[in-house]
Amino acid sequence: MILLDGKATSAAIRAEIKEKVDALEKKHGRVPGLAVILVGEDPASQVYVRMKEKGCVETGIRSIPHRLDASVTQDELMDLIRSLNADDTVDGILLQLPLPSGLDSQACLDLIDPDKDVDGFHPMNVGKLALGLPGYRSCTPAGVIELLKRYDISTSGKKAVVLGRSNIVGKPMALMLIEYSDQGNASTTIVHSRTPLEDQKAFCQDADIVIAAVGRPLHVKGDWIKEGAVVVDVGIHRTDDGLVGDCDFEAMKDKCSAISPVPGGVGPMTIAQLLLNTMQAYSDHVKA
Amino acid sequence: MILLDGKATSAAIRAEIKEKVDALEKKHGRVPGLAVILVGEDPASQVYVRMKEKGCVETGIRSIPHRLDASVTQDELMDLIRSLNADDTVDGILLQLPLPSGLDSQACLDLIDPDKDVDGFHPMNVGKLALGLPGYRSCTPAGVIELLKRYDISTSGKKAVVLGRSNIVGKPMALMLIEYSDQGNASTTIVHSRTPLEDQKAFCQDADIVIAAVGRPLHVKGDWIKEGAVVVDVGIHRTDDGLVGDCDFEAMKDKCSAISPVPGGVGPMTIAQLLLNTMQAYSDHVKA
Repeated sequence: MILLDGKATSAAIRAEIKEKVDALEKKHGRVPGLAVILVGEDPASQVYVRMKEKGCVETGIRSIPHRLDASVTQDELMDLIRSLNADDTVDGILLQLPLPSGLDSQACLDLIDPDKDVDGFHPMNVGKLALGLPGYRSCTPAGVIELLKRYDISTSGKKAVVLGRSNIVGKPMALMLIEYSDQGNASTTIVHSRTPLEDQKAFCQDADIVIAAVGRPLHVKGDWIKEGAVVVDVGIHRTDDGLVGDCDFEAMKDKCSAISPVPGGVGPMTIAQLLLNTMQAYSDHVKA
Repeated sequence: MILLDGKATSAAIRAEIKEKVDALEKKHGRVPGLAVILVGEDPASQVYVRMKEKGCVETGIRSIPHRLDASVTQDELMDLIRSLNADDTVDGILLQLPLPSGLDSQACLDLIDPDKDVDGFHPMNVGKLALGLPGYRSCTPAGVIELLKRYDISTSGKKAVVLGRSNIVGKPMALMLIEYSDQGNASTTIVHSRTPLEDQKAFCQDADIVIAAVGRPLHVKGDWIKEGAVVVDVGIHRTDDGLVGDCDFEAMKDKCSAISPVPGGVGPMTIAQLLLNTMQAYSDHVKA
């Protein structure tokens, strides 16, 4: 069994980025800049933002923090986004979600310049993904594809199941898995909350690749997975027994040909992908 | 077996639209306008454009034809689109594809105002579909959903297979089938050219709903379909034996609980959906 080590892979990607940033700074006279907007005091959001900023520091990307009080108005937040859109030293803009109640996330996301939308949440970028056009791609599913790629796991012609149909993971994940590429070309099934449990199990038991993004601890049981399958676990949950994912890792790990651990699997890849997207934005901006 | 009669359903939709157009003209002083751009002499495109214009005439929508010579330059075509974007009496803009070689379709599609993109091909509208936001939806898959709806066929909790992963049918079809709705909520599998034939067959044999959009005559055989399944055939092919679809209608019709014929199934629904999209554009524009 191969452990899909997201932590080590992410570290390797960061080292590659750092090297590039050093070279690019010499050439263009500035480093890539990522603006990170955090509104309010949500503890989980604070942790995520800290991890993203740490990733920037490690790679030489300039992190441009904007901490706003939960009492900020929609207009003030939109004005900040407009000013970041107009700022030539800002390559990427990240709005940490969820926003405090009363603020309209979709209106803010729609306002971010699609060319600075390194989270890949803008309808324009989601549409480009669906159409197979170049654009920024949602970090978690793109990070999963990158992880498979780094481990030379091809999904081409194989049967993949995506559990979950969220805008951030499930749907873009499925769209990536049916693209024309080595980490695409999969016959892909999307199951979700309205799929009867016995069908979810049956689809998984038949699958070569299982990607779990349901947001329920230990939802995917050991006997759902066939011998030799590849399992990628997007979930992360704090339980009395520590951090667990959407999959029962212990019950399936000996059957899998490869499996991502929780923690240390998809999480670090999401951050690595955000940094890769920021690099892409920088390259496009210095070219333009 | 229920025949999913697209011709009759489309006629009913056109009658509904005609009634609305008459009322709306009285209220707003103008009828909805659909600009149809046809470049060159492609015979199939000419037929499609004629059918779309006939749909307009029948429903009272004003068809605004723009026939351009195949020698038109990219700049001239883009200028026409710009002028239609700016024209307040034009609610929808349709660029008939394919364009003659030498012209860049994507650049033209990207230029069409997303609020007039009644074909639902603009990345902005594709992204909105993927995100579950309101927007214009690709006419063929949206027409399939409308057909199922009119026959009270729910896909919720059922197993659906989409054969084909095109931008125009397969991918948007799958996205619609996993939406939160009665003609959504399906566990949805997308198979395609890289899916081994035996897997395509096995997925179909297990499916409650099969939607074929592979573009190969009689690709889906009679023994691929389980008793009681619903089959929607998007394909249409001229053969020595007349028009046939992607499915072997004769070999499966007695097993299906419902099946769409070719011709007279999905084709007329595509046109009906285009007219519905034009009505939606008109409503949005007179409100704005």
